[in-house]
Amino acid sequence: MSKSYTIPHEVTYYECDINSNMTISSLLAAAILVSEKQSDALGRGSDFVHQLGLGWVITNYQVHIARLPKTGEIVEFTTQATAYNKYFCYRNFWVHSQAGEELVKIESVFVLMDQTTRKLSHVREEVIEPYECEKITKIRRAPAIEKIEQGKTIPYRVRFYDIDGNQHVNNAVYFNWMLDALGYDFLKGNIPEEINIRFDKEIEYGNEVDSCVEIISDESVVKTRHEIRVGGKLCSEANILWKSFEV
Amino acid sequence: MSKSYTIPHEVTYYECDINSNMTISSLLAAAILVSEKQSDALGRGSDFVHQLGLGWVITNYQVHIARLPKTGEIVEFTTQATAYNKYFCYRNFWVHSQAGEELVKIESVFVLMDQTTRKLSHVREEVIEPYECEKITKIRRAPAIEKIEQGKTIPYRVRFYDIDGNQHVNNAVYFNWMLDALGYDFLKGNIPEEINIRFDKEIEYGNEVDSCVEIISDESVVKTRHEIRVGGKLCSEANILWKSFEV
Repeated sequence: MSKSYTIPHEVTYYECDINSNMTISSLLAAAILVSEKQSDALGRGSDFVHQLGLGWVITNYQVHIARLPKTGEIVEFTTQATAYNKYFCYRNFWVHSQAGEELVKIESVFVLMDQTTRKLSHVREEVIEPYECEKITKIRRAPAIEKIEQGKTIPYRVRFYDIDGNQHVNNAVYFNWMLDALGYDFLKGNIPEEINIRFDKEIEYGNEVDSCVEIISDESVVKTRHEIRVGGKLCSEANILWKSFEV
Repeated sequence: MSKSYTIPHEVTYYECDINSNMTISSLLAAAILVSEKQSDALGRGSDFVHQLGLGWVITNYQVHIARLPKTGEIVEFTTQATAYNKYFCYRNFWVHSQAGEELVKIESVFVLMDQTTRKLSHVREEVIEPYECEKITKIRRAPAIEKIEQGKTIPYRVRFYDIDGNQHVNNAVYFNWMLDALGYDFLKGNIPEEINIRFDKEIEYGNEVDSCVEIISDESVVKTRHEIRVGGKLCSEANILWKSFEV
């Protein structure tokens, strides 16, 4: 069993939406923080990785939401690197309530990128060893993402505060573009239950971003399809399953 | 001496910009959190105030920055309601480093707004009494804000996640619009030293926002003037004094 790492987190009002639910972008940002803290604690923080000429990049998230944390709630964020193969590292995150209830589970895929060539690097033993996770040969595939058939497009501009220390748009910001395109009434009345997102291309300051969205709704289910494009090129795509939210 | 209230705060990567400095909007959001916690602790949280048909609105900030908190730094946020008169409540905030150094001081003005009429209410004794702050007759005026003479304007759209539980754009978001309009090179190379901001009108979801900015720079000083307008109407204005930032 690989090492897990847990930190408590008090959900602030500024991490929440108008329904007092923690936003998906804040949830993911707080999850990444706990994995950074684990890496630091194991002597494998970003300095160690950068010094090898490498950087971590997230390629997929699958987010399963039983209930979103609420403003003022104290929850626990836990992470565990579960397995790796030649190119992919698999890491899970969990958010638990104080009563021990599992609120959110996130499955993620990380890769190591060569900082100079911007190409995929194989997973280096010296980076991964302290996490004590299993080496596997199988490649785990996330469920396929359905393409948009008839969508609408909303333009966004990358803002200065959207970019992080790596000079790229932080992954968490993609969710804001995807979700904001759904509009006030949809977001006020619905809450995500399952999110499957893939990140294909990095986005930089100065890029004009198109957030394309399609809402598919029948009696039993509401789902949305999302694409983030820059100059027509696909940078990220997602499918989200929703449930209706009552305050 | 009125009651002060302090909480520790660990600065996360997602509260910081590409230079690892805490952003002004995160700084203000965290400051407001400490005042909310003090109010809750004194039995004067938002529920108490709402039940009187009232809500707090911030009209001014003067921010004095010796140094911005850095990613990973543990700092202390302190707040104290310093005085009030018939209509205005004066509250200070401080951010201190672990070594006790004063990093940031914020002077603020709060008013109580009638939630139905959206008009100013006089300060109610039952709201203010537990803070044990001095009643004064004098009205303290913030320094005048210089108007833009020749500016440029960048349009912004209010996003779903910009609005808070009161259905209005959170004050902290105004800073993102003001500062983002300065552009990458300016923000990468300069850091705010003094900010004087006034909030005149609330902004709602669906509004198209103009962020107007003028940069005034001579050998000795760099300052900027900012206006946030919706449909030509002034909603907020600010002056900022900058110093150059070296990584």
